[in-house]
Amino acid sequence: MAGLSTCPPLTRDSVIQARQLIRSHVRLTPVLTNKTLSRMASTPRNSAAIGSGRTPARPILRLWFKCENMQRTGAFKARGAFHAIKRLQQEPGWLESGGKEKGVVGYSAGNHAQALALAAAEDGITSRIVMPTTTRPNKIAATKGYGAIVVFSGPGFAGREAVAAEIVAETGARLVPPHDHPDVILGQATAGLEFQEQVLEQQQQQQQQNSIEEGGGGGRRRRRKGLDAIIAPCSGGGLLSGTALSCEGTGIRVFGAEPEFEGADDGRRGFYSGARIVAHTKTPDTVADGLAGAVSATPWGLIHDRGLVSGMYAVTEEEILAATRLLLERLKMWVEPSAAVPLAVALYNEEFRGMAEREGGEEGWDLGLVVSGGNVDVDGMVRLFS
Amino acid sequence: MAGLSTCPPLTRDSVIQARQLIRSHVRLTPVLTNKTLSRMASTPRNSAAIGSGRTPARPILRLWFKCENMQRTGAFKARGAFHAIKRLQQEPGWLESGGKEKGVVGYSAGNHAQALALAAAEDGITSRIVMPTTTRPNKIAATKGYGAIVVFSGPGFAGREAVAAEIVAETGARLVPPHDHPDVILGQATAGLEFQEQVLEQQQQQQQQNSIEEGGGGGRRRRRKGLDAIIAPCSGGGLLSGTALSCEGTGIRVFGAEPEFEGADDGRRGFYSGARIVAHTKTPDTVADGLAGAVSATPWGLIHDRGLVSGMYAVTEEEILAATRLLLERLKMWVEPSAAVPLAVALYNEEFRGMAEREGGEEGWDLGLVVSGGNVDVDGMVRLFS
Repeated sequence: MAGLSTCPPLTRDSVIQARQLIRSHVRLTPVLTNKTLSRMASTPRNSAAIGSGRTPARPILRLWFKCENMQRTGAFKARGAFHAIKRLQQEPGWLESGGKEKGVVGYSAGNHAQALALAAAEDGITSRIVMPTTTRPNKIAATKGYGAIVVFSGPGFAGREAVAAEIVAETGARLVPPHDHPDVILGQATAGLEFQEQVLEQQQQQQQQNSIEEGGGGGRRRRRKGLDAIIAPCSGGGLLSGTALSCEGTGIRVFGAEPEFEGADDGRRGFYSGARIVAHTKTPDTVADGLAGAVSATPWGLIHDRGLVSGMYAVTEEEILAATRLLLERLKMWVEPSAAVPLAVALYNEEFRGMAEREGGEEGWDLGLVVSGGNVDVDGMVRLFS
Repeated sequence: MAGLSTCPPLTRDSVIQARQLIRSHVRLTPVLTNKTLSRMASTPRNSAAIGSGRTPARPILRLWFKCENMQRTGAFKARGAFHAIKRLQQEPGWLESGGKEKGVVGYSAGNHAQALALAAAEDGITSRIVMPTTTRPNKIAATKGYGAIVVFSGPGFAGREAVAAEIVAETGARLVPPHDHPDVILGQATAGLEFQEQVLEQQQQQQQQNSIEEGGGGGRRRRRKGLDAIIAPCSGGGLLSGTALSCEGTGIRVFGAEPEFEGADDGRRGFYSGARIVAHTKTPDTVADGLAGAVSATPWGLIHDRGLVSGMYAVTEEEILAATRLLLERLKMWVEPSAAVPLAVALYNEEFRGMAEREGGEEGWDLGLVVSGGNVDVDGMVRLFS
């Protein structure tokens, strides 16, 4: 990574600059709506499902989906990786000291691996990715396919940071961590910026369409004002903190979504206790395997200390699979279960739904959900639903 | 349906008019590209896979995907249904004679059922859909969900046309057949029209982008000229004949794609023997269950007699499943296997690939593939890949 002293400040303006830097390298991913899913989200849940004696919440939620599964390398991670690589090349002296040949090193069994490999390759920079020997073969193949040198660190996640540090010491390569760096966060934040603009554009188009159909009487309709809130998945916190940063000062509230299985909701527990949970004793074996990590320090500073995130919510494994099924069958999008966790919160978390009912009132909310990635193979999906 | 005497002629101009009529009711579905899939299509196949002694074809294919799985009701069928319903309302006297209450009737176990139900409901027209008792419960529920009255015709496809005819006789409803009517064909044809425009737009954007990046030197690049060819799936022939009609006079060649399993390639066999195969003795039990029907008379007139289709190709069950897997994992699109048959032809049919190599030459082809629908549930997909 570029040295910390050279990083832009963590502000919304820096997100706008980050977007300029990576614009021609990442896809402007589609933003979709879906009447069936919005209707489901706006329908009170069955009392039996939420426990006797409770009155189901009645929020009005118009859902918007930011499809980062359609991003290059199949996940939002391409944004942070491209930004990190572009910023590194701006660091004075990096290129002259043989930076491209020394290259970059990352550790990841998942989407960051492929993203970093691609971003480095496109600028002719050597990349080394440290992966557990237990990584699924298709992910190893994809990472090599993007041109990376894959280095194995043994089974499981233990020791991979040490292996990466060894490579740094031996080769002079720069470490590009998956979330704990301002450049990575600013890159991930660009998805939130696009999301805000795309929803406004689509609302305006819809308003014009209504206006034409009603012979100019569109003025009676709801005022178009963009998103009211966004839910983003949270693991290391790069996407969530970036999304929150992209919304700073806009009035759009940002919420984090996690699996609750085996304590994977470290972000939520830390958020409400006021102290970050630094690491998991044992990696939670959730179906949302992209969200098994613990929140890193820099993202935490934005999420908690700077108060940019308004709340954290967790959902069960069954709820995540049900939401995954809906994104597949209804949105027609191939997604990994981690990408369905925000929809699961919107549909099944009564605490969230009650809050959205109170805050959204009769007008309701235009609620953005970040569909973070689609890197699951068919065999993996078959196992999840068999 | 509107009476045949009132139908517009089957010309490309009529397709342009059809598009105006349904424009605000259907989605402008996305057109996607994918580097990995284009590279695969442009790579000669392994000699072992194509049989000893043969030299694998070396076509250059830049693939474009028209994602009709993202269409309303999850398939291109919404286009034909909306057009049929709009045209019916233009028929002199239909409304005044109580047309909306008498309604429409269709027979379908699949995508036409939901499409007709939705199109009728949006204009306040009663719809009755005849379905086999063996139809999957989720399809019955979806059709009812769009507001249709579902009438069962017994197991299998036999007798459903008779049941529909009885309803017509009893209620005065109009039959909306799934493919054998000019209004339906003109509706399906609108996908091809959009496809042509969208590819041209994206090529121009890409050219501008290249030009900016190269400091104005984009003139050396390949001339942008839209699609060279399109492959569409063929069952009853509505989509294929409509696509061909949308390309008439443009120089874009159109090809049909079918499963070969259990004789499902009736279109191909009829095409090369010169005589339409009117029906299957036994419905082929192909994984591409949307393509099990035989080509109808009106589509055949366009496909064969008017010579608008340049060739028909068939692929195996294994090839269809392999192409389905690629659309899921690589394009990140939730598709039914029928929608993957054109990609299977482009990747695995040596006869097609040899022809594309000869015709496309060194320049290669911009090849459009119509991804026709995405109506398969997770359980069905799990069964296919287990």
